[in-house]
Amino acid sequence: MSAAPPLIAAIEAGGTKFNLALGTGPDDLRATARIPTTTPGETMAAVLDWLDLAVREQGPFSAIGVGSFGPLELDPARPHYGYITSTPKLAWQQTDLLGPLRQRFGVPVGFDTDVNAAALGEARWGAGQGVDPLVYLTIGTGVGGGVIIHGRPLHGLLHPEMGHLQVPAPATPGTVDLRCQCPFHDSCLEGFVSGPAITARWGAAAETLPAGHPAWRDAAETLARGLVSIITILSPRRIILGGGVMHGPGVLEAVRAAVRRQLNDYLQVSALLDDIEHYLVAPGLGDRAGVLGAIVLGQHALDQKSVSSA
Amino acid sequence: MSAAPPLIAAIEAGGTKFNLALGTGPDDLRATARIPTTTPGETMAAVLDWLDLAVREQGPFSAIGVGSFGPLELDPARPHYGYITSTPKLAWQQTDLLGPLRQRFGVPVGFDTDVNAAALGEARWGAGQGVDPLVYLTIGTGVGGGVIIHGRPLHGLLHPEMGHLQVPAPATPGTVDLRCQCPFHDSCLEGFVSGPAITARWGAAAETLPAGHPAWRDAAETLARGLVSIITILSPRRIILGGGVMHGPGVLEAVRAAVRRQLNDYLQVSALLDDIEHYLVAPGLGDRAGVLGAIVLGQHALDQKSVSSA
Repeated sequence: MSAAPPLIAAIEAGGTKFNLALGTGPDDLRATARIPTTTPGETMAAVLDWLDLAVREQGPFSAIGVGSFGPLELDPARPHYGYITSTPKLAWQQTDLLGPLRQRFGVPVGFDTDVNAAALGEARWGAGQGVDPLVYLTIGTGVGGGVIIHGRPLHGLLHPEMGHLQVPAPATPGTVDLRCQCPFHDSCLEGFVSGPAITARWGAAAETLPAGHPAWRDAAETLARGLVSIITILSPRRIILGGGVMHGPGVLEAVRAAVRRQLNDYLQVSALLDDIEHYLVAPGLGDRAGVLGAIVLGQHALDQKSVSSA
Repeated sequence: MSAAPPLIAAIEAGGTKFNLALGTGPDDLRATARIPTTTPGETMAAVLDWLDLAVREQGPFSAIGVGSFGPLELDPARPHYGYITSTPKLAWQQTDLLGPLRQRFGVPVGFDTDVNAAALGEARWGAGQGVDPLVYLTIGTGVGGGVIIHGRPLHGLLHPEMGHLQVPAPATPGTVDLRCQCPFHDSCLEGFVSGPAITARWGAAAETLPAGHPAWRDAAETLARGLVSIITILSPRRIILGGGVMHGPGVLEAVRAAVRRQLNDYLQVSALLDDIEHYLVAPGLGDRAGVLGAIVLGQHALDQKSVSSA
């Protein structure tokens, strides 16, 4: 196809903010915006307003892609398809994300988790090109993971919810609050290594902790526990590590060292033994992986529409 | 195709025994045998002898399928394709399993992990028919997991090695040896819940421990930790639980209850909330899943041969 790629409206729905974009890819983002996540009514109204404005300024878009925090209902056969379901963000439980978008714009809408979207974006334009299976794990306000396998985002009984995989509790002494901070679980990854969990553990905002603070080693060790489980269960060919916690001083290097130490040469694969710098990597798209992945979701929705109406 | 299905030689290579069969499926096993796993030289010689005998008695077979304990080299592009690589069973490290079989019989050979084979067998004829993604987890002398996704066994950087996913150490007091029994890792699933690990923890052979012994609750709780990680990482639509430890009194029921309790309704899916008896299930093929899956591997190898020579 040599036709110009279709213009897509992309929505990355996050727990603290919604990132919006209108464009066709990383080199062609015609408009972007950031909207704080408050109540569903207020936030969705702001999203619709911005999209209306974008259409007036840039012309109509062909499809919408939405990557959202979850858990989500992703099965189009179910009545609550397009909803956020049992999220710990109580105001957003049972929120219909797609309904208002479809009603207002009448274009195909692609829908997936924020982290499956980020994995799609990285697979198309970033650090995951040609890599399959690919995992994108974000460690920020929450922890979540997306998977691309055989070219498509992993959906099964539900979708990956990697923040809630079980890990051994960190062994580091001297923490303020030793407990897993997840309201649902007593020993899950998110409850120990998310930004808010680090803050609770050490009694100081994560972003204020200096290089060399034991918090970073503690987080890296526990994150590595989770990565070892991801590697032994799913055998991905690469894992991309995004999110604010990964900006902590030396965290990526410490995580690589901890994964090597914990695996202890059990898996005799050179990607792990000799080349872990190319196995555990930073996002190629930086913080734009999610919203760019939402563009890919919109493109997929458009492709499916063409196929089904052909 | 209405032609008779091709006769396949099936080999399930286990750490304590090799199961052999000649047949076309569960209702047509024309010969079976069990050979103890000793040294590679001795065991492979016995396998070749039995296959020679089977050919004389039953006629020639069209392909061989091998499901083996691992880790394995499954990439046909690599020089050590068909080898067992870094296994803790030292005598079997760097053993060429496929070479002798190809040399002797000159037929297509299919090759995968014992647990991917068991998953294939269950997907074709057992408790995993129509289920995708499907996980088969065995808890016996060792712990291992296989995955069928989009219709085929999961291969990635390597293959799943689920025995070595990380779990919180069991909290039960009164054990004889609290440590993880894995020679490689300090907190992995296999090191706490394999048969030998249970024996070491409680100072008595696992199969002699009576109903109500705390060992069973301890194993079920820790196994559930691993299952929660498998569910949150891979989102399988069903998990089949095989292996000798699952024959312990009440273990399957205790595992189901522990998974429900640990997930704590975080994943709002009726398969988990209302119907976990059909989500965590016993094998439909009993202890024959692996060797029957090896028949499927042989059939796949034959199909690929037909395609590539067509």
